[in-house]
Amino acid sequence: LPGIPLPDSIRFAGDIPAAIQGTEVVVLAVPSKAFRTVAEQLPSFGGAIVSVTKGIEYGTGLTMSGILQQTAPKATVAALSGPSLAIEVARDIPTAVVVAASEMETASRMQALFHRPAFRVYTSLDVMGVELGGALKNVIAIAAGVCDGLGFGDNSKAALITRAIVEIRRLGVASGARSETFGGLSGLGDLTVTCFSRLSRNREFGERLGRGEKVEQILSSRWTVAEGYHTARAAYQLGQRLKIETPIVDEVYAMLYEAKNAGRAVHDLIARDSKVE
Amino acid sequence: LPGIPLPDSIRFAGDIPAAIQGTEVVVLAVPSKAFRTVAEQLPSFGGAIVSVTKGIEYGTGLTMSGILQQTAPKATVAALSGPSLAIEVARDIPTAVVVAASEMETASRMQALFHRPAFRVYTSLDVMGVELGGALKNVIAIAAGVCDGLGFGDNSKAALITRAIVEIRRLGVASGARSETFGGLSGLGDLTVTCFSRLSRNREFGERLGRGEKVEQILSSRWTVAEGYHTARAAYQLGQRLKIETPIVDEVYAMLYEAKNAGRAVHDLIARDSKVE
Repeated sequence: LPGIPLPDSIRFAGDIPAAIQGTEVVVLAVPSKAFRTVAEQLPSFGGAIVSVTKGIEYGTGLTMSGILQQTAPKATVAALSGPSLAIEVARDIPTAVVVAASEMETASRMQALFHRPAFRVYTSLDVMGVELGGALKNVIAIAAGVCDGLGFGDNSKAALITRAIVEIRRLGVASGARSETFGGLSGLGDLTVTCFSRLSRNREFGERLGRGEKVEQILSSRWTVAEGYHTARAAYQLGQRLKIETPIVDEVYAMLYEAKNAGRAVHDLIARDSKVE
Repeated sequence: LPGIPLPDSIRFAGDIPAAIQGTEVVVLAVPSKAFRTVAEQLPSFGGAIVSVTKGIEYGTGLTMSGILQQTAPKATVAALSGPSLAIEVARDIPTAVVVAASEMETASRMQALFHRPAFRVYTSLDVMGVELGGALKNVIAIAAGVCDGLGFGDNSKAALITRAIVEIRRLGVASGARSETFGGLSGLGDLTVTCFSRLSRNREFGERLGRGEKVEQILSSRWTVAEGYHTARAAYQLGQRLKIETPIVDEVYAMLYEAKNAGRAVHDLIARDSKVE
């Protein structure tokens, strides 16, 4: 993060097994594409792993905690998510997030570890819901950015968000998550910030798409890929597999992987809405 | 609206009873403070009245449709609300709103009347829910603006919105509204746009408050009063009367009517949150 010096206490290491020797808690914060590769280096780790990665694995449909169950079966797993633009967290701007684990004891331990006056951590037992909210919102943010790029306004984005949270919840509940989680910080909270903030990379990706840039052009001009690009494909596949209607995800998928025109995609999305709310 | 010419077909009149002679539908779009005075001029009107005013009457706790039931008992009443910043609507930017009436026939008629390709109208039978969502979001927008004025960021606002929709729903359901309505366009949709958009007057009011201006100073520098200023007082009263906890409304009320320091109010709000989401 430009302008934010890292604490001197942080050490850098390239050898993961050596680095985690004697460690109680590991935070995994790598892009979802690299998650399995990194997670495979923790096969005998018996401490707690906190995933802050937001994504769904293409093919398996697994969230990051699902991958960890396979690659690090001895570890206790937690997921931390919520509306937390990195630069704002680094500047000590008040932020509230959720840490989820399948057992409250783990969630509470992680809460105690991460909680700060300006970084408030709430607990949840719904790992799947917290992870899916964080992952799927990146796909919606691309759609929100497309609206921006097409010159649409805040009214359009507000309507999109309202529809999106219903869609995310539907897909999430079918995957085993709790409905209420999507109304919380890791669902609705993260969705609003990602769709409205100028600082969101997924939104920006969509904005360029809406302005007429080609997907390949956008991908090649960035050294990090917006997570929503990968998640769109995995979420589309998940919806198909679970036979859940996901109109917004479908249109984002079509724009990203089938070269569908952005204006056409948004038009189709608007036109398919029913008339009773 | 600057730069938006009004259609030539619009005529201006000062005499309301004469103006509505032979009219089937009247749209009431006056500030909530003036609503009853204007509504009292429709005692024998037998057509449909569509209220687009967002407020709660101080003292009675009535929404605008409640006032109309008293002042225009022969009229059929509908409420139109949703994320619809005026300047964007005027520019034909895609917008989706809800029209609510106690009978579907009325709601459908108003839908047919207002629906346009870029102004999509959905129907609802929950008049109270649609009205309260629209009114209460203005109070929350002041709190969101205070966060902006204090130099907080989008993370803080996202957390605020997540808590706010729970508070609005609680107060709304206690008033007889349907819970689901607050997750729709007139609830969540309108709340997000009002809290995040640069164009929102209530948010701007809060921003000036957060920057340290006095309430009197802000009020005297504007020729229109942000609706949230009045609604905060009425909503606070409503919460007290219904014995519903309204922490955000309470702090906004304290800032506006008890000269509570903005930084202190936000601090108290953050501090009172519990630890399990």
